[in-house]
Amino acid sequence: MTFSSKLIEKAVEAFATLPGIGRKSALRLVLHLLKQDKNTTEQFTAALMAMREGIRECSVCHNLADEAVCQICADARRDRSLVCVVENIRDLMAIEDTSQYRGLYHVLGGVISPIDGIGPGDLHIDSLEERVRKGEIREIIMAISPTIEGETTIYYISKKLLPLGVQLSAIARGVAFGGDLEYADELTLGRSIVARVPYSAR
Amino acid sequence: MTFSSKLIEKAVEAFATLPGIGRKSALRLVLHLLKQDKNTTEQFTAALMAMREGIRECSVCHNLADEAVCQICADARRDRSLVCVVENIRDLMAIEDTSQYRGLYHVLGGVISPIDGIGPGDLHIDSLEERVRKGEIREIIMAISPTIEGETTIYYISKKLLPLGVQLSAIARGVAFGGDLEYADELTLGRSIVARVPYSAR
Repeated sequence: MTFSSKLIEKAVEAFATLPGIGRKSALRLVLHLLKQDKNTTEQFTAALMAMREGIRECSVCHNLADEAVCQICADARRDRSLVCVVENIRDLMAIEDTSQYRGLYHVLGGVISPIDGIGPGDLHIDSLEERVRKGEIREIIMAISPTIEGETTIYYISKKLLPLGVQLSAIARGVAFGGDLEYADELTLGRSIVARVPYSAR
Repeated sequence: MTFSSKLIEKAVEAFATLPGIGRKSALRLVLHLLKQDKNTTEQFTAALMAMREGIRECSVCHNLADEAVCQICADARRDRSLVCVVENIRDLMAIEDTSQYRGLYHVLGGVISPIDGIGPGDLHIDSLEERVRKGEIREIIMAISPTIEGETTIYYISKKLLPLGVQLSAIARGVAFGGDLEYADELTLGRSIVARVPYSAR
C-alpha cells in the first residue's frame, strides 16, 4: 500500500497493530475519521486514554474496575456467600450476560500451564484463599474451561479450599441447548450420559 | 453486553462507532489495549490525533497531504504533462499501488449525482480546468467508475476541457485478467468485443 502522506501512514499503522485489523481495514477506519470532524477523533482518543489511565483492578475479585472495588463487588444486592471463579474478564462478562447469576466473582487471570510458564503463583489463588478464610463464602463455583490446564487448575484450587470447609462446584458440562446430538463430540456426549440428571417436568 | 466498568463501556462504544466494528470486536480491541502497557494506547491515540489535526488537502490536486502540496505533486520525477482524474483518495491509492503510472492526479471528491444532491459545483472541476489552462498538461486520463454517475461526470468534464485543446482518455474497460469469460457480465463482455485491440505478441 502506497501512502502519499506520512501522517496517514502512521495512523494506518497504528490501527493495524490492533488484533484482527489489517492495513486495508485500517485505511478504511482512518478515512472514516477524516470524513468526520475533528471532535469525533478527539472524543474517540479521549475515551481510550481515559479508559487506559483510569482503569484499575478490583482489590477484592481482580475484575476491571473504575474504583478500588468493582461495581459487582460493591453491589449490595449480590449474594456474597457465592463466588464464581473465572479465568478472565471475558468469561466473567459472558456469565453476566446470561443474567442467571447473582453472586460475586473471582478472576484468576489465567490457568496453570507449565508449558507457558504459568504456575499457581502467577494466578490470583492466594487472594481467593484469603477471601474464603474470612468465612463469608458458602460456595465456590468453578467456571473454568474444560481443558487439561483448566482441570489442573480446578484440582489445585480444590486441594487448597476443600480443607477450609467451603463447598465447591463446577459448571455443568453437557450437550449444548439447540445442539444436535450427532454433532456433539464423543467426550462431551459420553460424559453427558454418565453425568445424567433426574428428569423433572417443568 | 454487560459492563462492570463505565470506562470500559465508553471505550467499547468509541470503537464500535467505527465502520465494520461491532461491540464484540470493540471489546476485544479494548482488552488488547489493556494488556499492553500505557505507552501503546498513548502512541495509538497520538498517531490518530496527529493525523486528524495535521492532515491537509493538496492545493494542486486535492489529495491528502502533510504539507501545502502533496508528495506526488511535489515529486520532480513525475510526468507533469499527464493528469489522472479520480473520484477519491482510495482510487488514487489503488492506482499508485499498481506502480504503472508516473503522472500526476486530480481528486474530484465524488461524481455528479443529482439524486444525492451533488452537482458539478460540489466537485473539484473548476480547479482542474484552471490546471489545464496553465498549459503544462498534455493528456487527462479519466479513471472514473463506469456507473451512470461516472459517465455523466466524464461527459461534463469533457465538455469543459476538450475546447481547451487537451487530450482526453479513459482507462480501458474489459474482461479482468484471470477472469473467466463466462462469468463476465454481458455489458463488459459485449464492450470488450466492440472495443477489441490489435493483437501484438509480447
